[in-house]
This record gives sequence, structure tokens and C-alpha cells, in this order.
Amino acid sequence: MVLPPKDHPRYKSLLAREKLVEASDVVANQGLIAHGRGEAFDYLLGEQTCLPALSAIKAASSAILAAKKPVISVNGNVVALAAREIARLSEISGAKVEINLFHRTPERIVGLTKMMKKVGIDALGENADDKIPGLSSERAKCCSDGIGSADVVLVPLEDGDRCEALVKMGKKVITIDLNPLSRTAQTAHITIVDELTRCLPLLSDFVKEKKGVDSFDNKQCLSDVLNYMAERISS
Amino acid sequence: MVLPPKDHPRYKSLLAREKLVEASDVVANQGLIAHGRGEAFDYLLGEQTCLPALSAIKAASSAILAAKKPVISVNGNVVALAAREIARLSEISGAKVEINLFHRTPERIVGLTKMMKKVGIDALGENADDKIPGLSSERAKCCSDGIGSADVVLVPLEDGDRCEALVKMGKKVITIDLNPLSRTAQTAHITIVDELTRCLPLLSDFVKEKKGVDSFDNKQCLSDVLNYMAERISS
Repeated sequence: MVLPPKDHPRYKSLLAREKLVEASDVVANQGLIAHGRGEAFDYLLGEQTCLPALSAIKAASSAILAAKKPVISVNGNVVALAAREIARLSEISGAKVEINLFHRTPERIVGLTKMMKKVGIDALGENADDKIPGLSSERAKCCSDGIGSADVVLVPLEDGDRCEALVKMGKKVITIDLNPLSRTAQTAHITIVDELTRCLPLLSDFVKEKKGVDSFDNKQCLSDVLNYMAERISS
Repeated sequence: MVLPPKDHPRYKSLLAREKLVEASDVVANQGLIAHGRGEAFDYLLGEQTCLPALSAIKAASSAILAAKKPVISVNGNVVALAAREIARLSEISGAKVEINLFHRTPERIVGLTKMMKKVGIDALGENADDKIPGLSSERAKCCSDGIGSADVVLVPLEDGDRCEALVKMGKKVITIDLNPLSRTAQTAHITIVDELTRCLPLLSDFVKEKKGVDSFDNKQCLSDVLNYMAERISS
């Protein structure tokens, strides 16, 4: 991995890019392109957690605290970028972790399972024995012990079709997506428009302290984020 | 290549993504991430050529028409996405094409040379016998017969350091970059904030008809683009 200079003003962003390129055997090429889209939106956010995102993080904490069976669904990008942050949230919240891929191959599932094991998590995913209705075969696969029976699912960096399918299954869906205009962002019940490694520790802290918010309006939150971005661009 | 359905509202964008993934042996992983950044900004532009971009295209046409030795510098992303459009501009303008890579490997140079040959262009690049001052060794390489002796260089999707180095060499630098805030966009003399396959045919048409503009202010143009994006986001 080519580490960027520590005093570079965009150190964290460059480090994230290198982490993904380094993990290119378990990250889909489409995942690299998706990361670039996220980088652009994060640039517009000033690479910091905005106030509307903070309220979404609190709403997510409430949902996870109220869940009977919370599950965190992770893909190649999520593991490459934030395996440790996911592990901490899983430990604090008791949520299981399931490796669930849009571009699913056995090799990638095995590689990502190993990466999660390194940070102390026995992730579900290898024995996918259940299906998300309404999706084509490979993309529908999930675990009955994980996503299949979850009531609350945190799916960071998820595809729009799959996010919609989870909502249709009646699950409460929380996503993390830097693009407030994406179909995933628009479809989920709670959308945290923030960078993964920045918001996951905040979410874990709120869950640990059993803090949250009672009422939350996702449409309003996304509109607030868009206005925040627009103001930053024009100034 | 997995072709998107032709009636998909974002067909061109999805096709571009597939082209890049398909060409992943000659496109750097960093190039895939960079493409994603471009996609996000293009989304904010509504995936169409905005008026400020059109004025930059006209200014670029004037610069190419006035040039004694125009050169088009292409990298993996440019060839994968727009080899034919580059070939047409080269034929119409008489500009040479040089393959010039940030992540340079002999394999990628050979692969890209073949791809350009398929669209009828004998590109420079394999015998790099010159240097762009101020850059580290591999990144400095160029051809004396191409970039080395050019007076006007069109460098689409270029890195900020290299764009700056070309400006310091006294060359007139035209770039195509979807991010109006990038260092490349801010450093070049003429920045076309538009998608490659959308603006190159327009540029070729203007050159063919010997049309252009006399005065052009790049800072003002970039500011106009940013305002255009901000208005679209907030509406």
C-alpha cells in the first residue's frame, strides 16, 4: 500500500482510496467506481459529518437499540474500508454481521470472511440458505440466520434494487450513502449521508450510551443535506 | 461486457462504466475510482453539456486552430471511453496523439497503443525520450516528438501535478474534467467541465468548421459551472 504523506490535507481520503486498491481481489471493479462517486460527494460535504447526518446517526442508534434482531450487511467496499469500525459496532450492539455481495463470487465471500475474522468477527455469508424476494438469483442470496430473519438491517453502500427489496420485506432499513440523490438513499428508512469510517464510530458511541432520537424524517434530512451541499458549492 | 438495457434513463453512464470495467487490464484501479468521481459530478450536471462548458469547448477550438503543434495526451480512461472520438479529433485537427500515463507500465502502454491502432491512430508513447520537468521519474516521461515539443496540449482527465507541470513548461493546456474544483480544472488554461464522449464530438465539429471564441475567462467559466450545479442541487 502506498501511504499518502500524513500532513496531506486530504490524507484520510487518499488512505481510503489506497485501502480499496490494495483490496482489489475482494472489491469488485464496480465497487472502485462506486467509491469514486462517494469521494466526490464527500468533497462537497467538506469531508466532515454535517448536522443532518448527525441526526440520522441518532435515529439509526434508536432503531438499533429497539431492534430484536439487528443485522449489519457488509460488502467488499465496507470490509476493505471499515472492518474494525463494523466489528466494534457489532460488539456494542450485538448485531450479527453478514457478508452479502451484489457481485457475488465464492472467492470474494471467502476472502471477506477471512478479513472479518482478523478483526474478531465470525461473519455469516458463506452458507447462504435464504433469499431476498424479487431479486435475480445470485443477488437474492442471504442467510436465514442473518438478513433473512432480521428486523433491522444496516446496509452501508448498498445497491438501490436490493435496498428496495429489503424495505418490501418489511425490515427497517438503515443505510450509509454519500450520495443523497441515490435510489438507496431515497428508499431506505434512515439514510446517513456521511463517510463510513467517520460515522460508524459515532453510531457505536450513541448505541453504547443508549442515546438516540424519537422522531426522524428521512426526506427532510436528505433535503437538508442537499441544501448544505448547494450552499458549500456556491460559496 | 454486460450491456445495460437501451431504454434505461442512464444508459450512456452505465455503458461508460461497463467499458471501463471491461478494459480493466489497461485502466489503473485508481482510474476506476477517478471515473466514479466524474460520474457523481456529471450527475450534478444532469448528464448534459451546460452553457459554460460550451463556451470552453469553443475556446478550446480556437486554441487548437491557432496551434502550430497541437498534441492530444491520452491515458487508460480516455482510450477505454473515447478512442473513436479522439481519433476523429486527431484527424480533423492534425493533432498527434500521445499515450501518457500517470500509472505507467510497459504492458499498459502496449495495450493502449493497440487500442488506438484499432481506430486508425499511430499513437506516440512507446518510445518516451523526453521529460516533463518537475515530476518524479516514471511520471515525467514523454515523447520529444509529442508533448515535449507541443505548443498546445489537450490533456483530458489529467492529474493535478502533471497539469501544473505542463503549464510551467509554457504550453497552452486544455483539459476536460467533470470536477470543476479539481486542481487540474483550476490549473489549466481552458477547462471543459463535461463528459468526454459528449464534448469531444462538439469540439471536433467546431474545429472542422473553424469556429471558436476570441476571449475566454477560465475562472469565470468554472464559477459559472459551480453555480449551475448548486442551482440544480437545491431545486
